[in-house]
Amino acid sequence: MDAVELILTKRDGGRLSDAQIQWFHREYTAGRVADEQAAALLMAIFFRGMEPDELSVWTKAMIDSGERLDLSGVGRPTVDKHSTGGVGDKVSLMLCPLVAACGAAVPQLSGRGLGHTGGTLDKMESLAGWRAALEPDEMRAVLRSVGAVICAAGAGLAPADRKLYALRDVTGTVESIPLIASSIMSKKIAEGTEALVLDVKVGSGAFMKNLDSARRLAETMVGIGQAHGVRTAALLTAMDTPLGRTAGNAIEVQEAIDVLSGGGPADLIAVTVALAREMLELAGIKGVDPAAKLAAGEALPVWWDMVAAQGGPRAFELPEPAAGQRVVNAPRAGYLTRLDALAVGVAAWRLGAGRARKEDPVSAAAGVRWSATVGDPVEEGQALLVLYADDADRFAPALAALDGAFTIGPESPKPRDPVLDRIH
Amino acid sequence: MDAVELILTKRDGGRLSDAQIQWFHREYTAGRVADEQAAALLMAIFFRGMEPDELSVWTKAMIDSGERLDLSGVGRPTVDKHSTGGVGDKVSLMLCPLVAACGAAVPQLSGRGLGHTGGTLDKMESLAGWRAALEPDEMRAVLRSVGAVICAAGAGLAPADRKLYALRDVTGTVESIPLIASSIMSKKIAEGTEALVLDVKVGSGAFMKNLDSARRLAETMVGIGQAHGVRTAALLTAMDTPLGRTAGNAIEVQEAIDVLSGGGPADLIAVTVALAREMLELAGIKGVDPAAKLAAGEALPVWWDMVAAQGGPRAFELPEPAAGQRVVNAPRAGYLTRLDALAVGVAAWRLGAGRARKEDPVSAAAGVRWSATVGDPVEEGQALLVLYADDADRFAPALAALDGAFTIGPESPKPRDPVLDRIH
Repeated sequence: MDAVELILTKRDGGRLSDAQIQWFHREYTAGRVADEQAAALLMAIFFRGMEPDELSVWTKAMIDSGERLDLSGVGRPTVDKHSTGGVGDKVSLMLCPLVAACGAAVPQLSGRGLGHTGGTLDKMESLAGWRAALEPDEMRAVLRSVGAVICAAGAGLAPADRKLYALRDVTGTVESIPLIASSIMSKKIAEGTEALVLDVKVGSGAFMKNLDSARRLAETMVGIGQAHGVRTAALLTAMDTPLGRTAGNAIEVQEAIDVLSGGGPADLIAVTVALAREMLELAGIKGVDPAAKLAAGEALPVWWDMVAAQGGPRAFELPEPAAGQRVVNAPRAGYLTRLDALAVGVAAWRLGAGRARKEDPVSAAAGVRWSATVGDPVEEGQALLVLYADDADRFAPALAALDGAFTIGPESPKPRDPVLDRIH
Repeated sequence: MDAVELILTKRDGGRLSDAQIQWFHREYTAGRVADEQAAALLMAIFFRGMEPDELSVWTKAMIDSGERLDLSGVGRPTVDKHSTGGVGDKVSLMLCPLVAACGAAVPQLSGRGLGHTGGTLDKMESLAGWRAALEPDEMRAVLRSVGAVICAAGAGLAPADRKLYALRDVTGTVESIPLIASSIMSKKIAEGTEALVLDVKVGSGAFMKNLDSARRLAETMVGIGQAHGVRTAALLTAMDTPLGRTAGNAIEVQEAIDVLSGGGPADLIAVTVALAREMLELAGIKGVDPAAKLAAGEALPVWWDMVAAQGGPRAFELPEPAAGQRVVNAPRAGYLTRLDALAVGVAAWRLGAGRARKEDPVSAAAGVRWSATVGDPVEEGQALLVLYADDADRFAPALAALDGAFTIGPESPKPRDPVLDRIH
C-alpha cells in the first residue's frame, strides 16, 4: 500500500478501497504517512467527495483508531445531541437535564468554541469549580446517578479525527461535507450513545450558510449513524438570528437557568423542546411532554445535580464584567426585522467570550445581550444591545462588528418556525 | 499574508494575487510555509488550474527564488531545446552540436532519467571522464569556445522548483499542466537562453498520452516563455514508437555518433532536423540547412570538442554488457506495424538503463536495440529486439515488459510524419 496510490485514486475520481482507507487511518495516526500526503488526499476528497459506503468505512476507521465507550451499564436508553454550532446556542445546557428528567440518559461529550461560535464547555466553566475533564468511569458514574453528563471528549476517542482536524484547519480543507460529517460522527459514535439527534444550523451565523448544503450535511451524517447502528435523526434549525437573548459564557448559563426555571425566551424554548421530542422518540420514550416538564421547572434539579456531580456549585451568580458595559440604543421606534447572528457572534468573540486559537483563554463575563429579537417591537432609544467585557479596549472592535447588524422596520415580519426541516 | 488564505482562494476557483504568489514561493523556499500547506495548494491548483497571467507570475516567482544566468557574453544568439521526455530520445546529443555548427550557441541544462524515460546526462556519462557538473563560469566558457554545452542545472537555478518538484512527486500532483509548465519553464528561463524550442512528446511512451493535452501543455509553455521575453516555439512529436533504434545509455550515444557521422535512422534524423530548423529560425540564423550539415558530418567535430571540453574522450567504444544479451525473434514475416514505446522504455529501465529513485545508479551498457521500426519489413526469425544488461536477473522482467509490445502485419502502415504539430 502506498500513499501516492491512494491520492491518485481519489484525485482521479475513484473510490478508495476498504483496505486503503483502513491503511491510511492506521498509518497516518501512527505518523507513518506524511502530513503533506494526508493534506493532498484531503484536498482531493474536498473536490471529489466520497460515496456513502466509502464514507462509512472512512468513519469506522476513524472510530477504530481509538476506543469506543461502553454505556450499556447506564440502565436507561442513551441519546445524545450534536449541534453544528451557532450564536447564542446554549441549548445543550437545558436539553441534557430536560431529556434526563424525561427518562433517558444523555452522554454529552462537548467541545470548546472556536471563532464566532461558542462552545458548551466554555459556558459550563463559568460555573466555579465545574470540571470538564472526566475519566470514562467517572462519566459513566455521573450518567448513571444523574442521567445527564456534559464533559470533554477524552484523548482516547477517535484520535485519527484529532490529528486530521488539526491538519484540515491549516490546509483549507475544513469545508468538506464528508470530512465534516465523519469528524462529527466518529466522535459521537465512539462515545457509545445508542441514538443521536443532530441540530444542523443554517444561516449567516452557522457553518452552513444555505439550506441545500445543510440538508446534504444532515443526510450524510444520518447515513453514517445508521450504518453504524446508531439511531440518528437531524433537525435543520435557523441561525440567521442568534438564539435567545444572550451570546457569551456566564450570561448564557444564566439564560439557560432561566429557561430551566420555567422562564426564558420563546425561540430558545422552541428549539430545545423540538430537539428533546426527537431525542425521546429515538430513545423510545413515549407519553412524556418535554415542553410541560421544562415549563414546570422539573429539569432544574437535574441540572444542579449534574453541575454538582462535576465539582460545580448549586447556585449561580452572574460575574461582573471588569470593564463594565456599553449600550447600543435603537435609533428609531418600530419592529426589529433583522438581527444578524454572525455580527453578534463576532462581537461576542471580540469582547473576549470566544477564542481565535485553541490555546487562548476565554472571559466568563464577556458577551452581548439583546433586549429584543426579530419580530419584537422596539422604542426609540431603547437599550437594544448591551456589551460586556473585562477589557475596555475590546468594546471598539465589537461595536464595529455590530455596525449594520440590525434593521428596524415599520411592521413585524411574519413569524417563522426556527425548525426548518427534519431528516430521518 | 497567510497560507490558508491562499489555499482557500485557489480551492474556491479564484486567482492568486501577484503578492500572494511571490509570498508563497519566498516563504515556502525558505521553509516558512509547511509542506502540508504547499501540498494542499498544489492539489487545489491541480483541480482549478491557473490563469495565463497568474501562471506567468507564478513562474517568475520560481525564477526569482534563485539566480538567472547571464549569457550575454557568449557572442552568438543563444537557443535551447527542451524535450518532455520519451523513449530512445537522444536528440539533444546531436542537436546541440548541430545547431552550434549552424552558428547559434546552445546552453543545454539537462536532467537525469526517472522511470521509463531516459535522461540526457545519464547517456552522456557513458563517455568516460565526462563531467555533468559545471560552474556557471565554466559553462559559459564551453559555450563561448565550442558553441554548445550539455550540463546539469546548478542548485542556484530555480530552487523553488527543486523543492516543489520533490513535493509533487510524493503528493500525487505531478500531472498538472500549469505545474509541469512552470517547472520546466522556470529552469529554462533561469538558464538565460534567448530562445527556446520545446519538443512535446505525445503517445504511449510520453508523459502526455494524447494530442489535446500535449497541445495545451505546449501552448501553456510557449505563453510563459513569451511573457518572459524568451522567444519560444513548440513541436508536438510522436512517441507511440520509440525514437531511432536504441533505448539505453551507451547504445544511444553510439547511435547519436552514427547520426553525427552522416548515418543513423531516418525517424531520428527527421526529428533532429525539424527541431534544428525551429531553433535556427528563433535564433534568427538564415540560409543554413541543418539537414545538409548533419548529413555531411559537419556537427561531429563540434560534438567531440563539446565532449572533450567537459573532460570526456575524443572517441567512443561501446561497453560490453556484463551479463551479455538476450534476443526476441520475429515470430513471422511481414511488416512491423506497432512497436510500443512505453513497453520498450520499461524494458530498458528494468534492464538497468533507468532508475526508480533519483539516488539509484544506472548501467551504461544496459538497454534495448531493435532492428526494425514501424513500417519496416521483417523476416521470420529475425532478431527483432536485442536486450543488454550487466545483471542476468534483469532479463526476465524486461522480457515480460516486452510481451505483446509489437505487432507484425501483412502490409506496411502508411508512413507518418513524426512532427504532429507546431505551436508558435
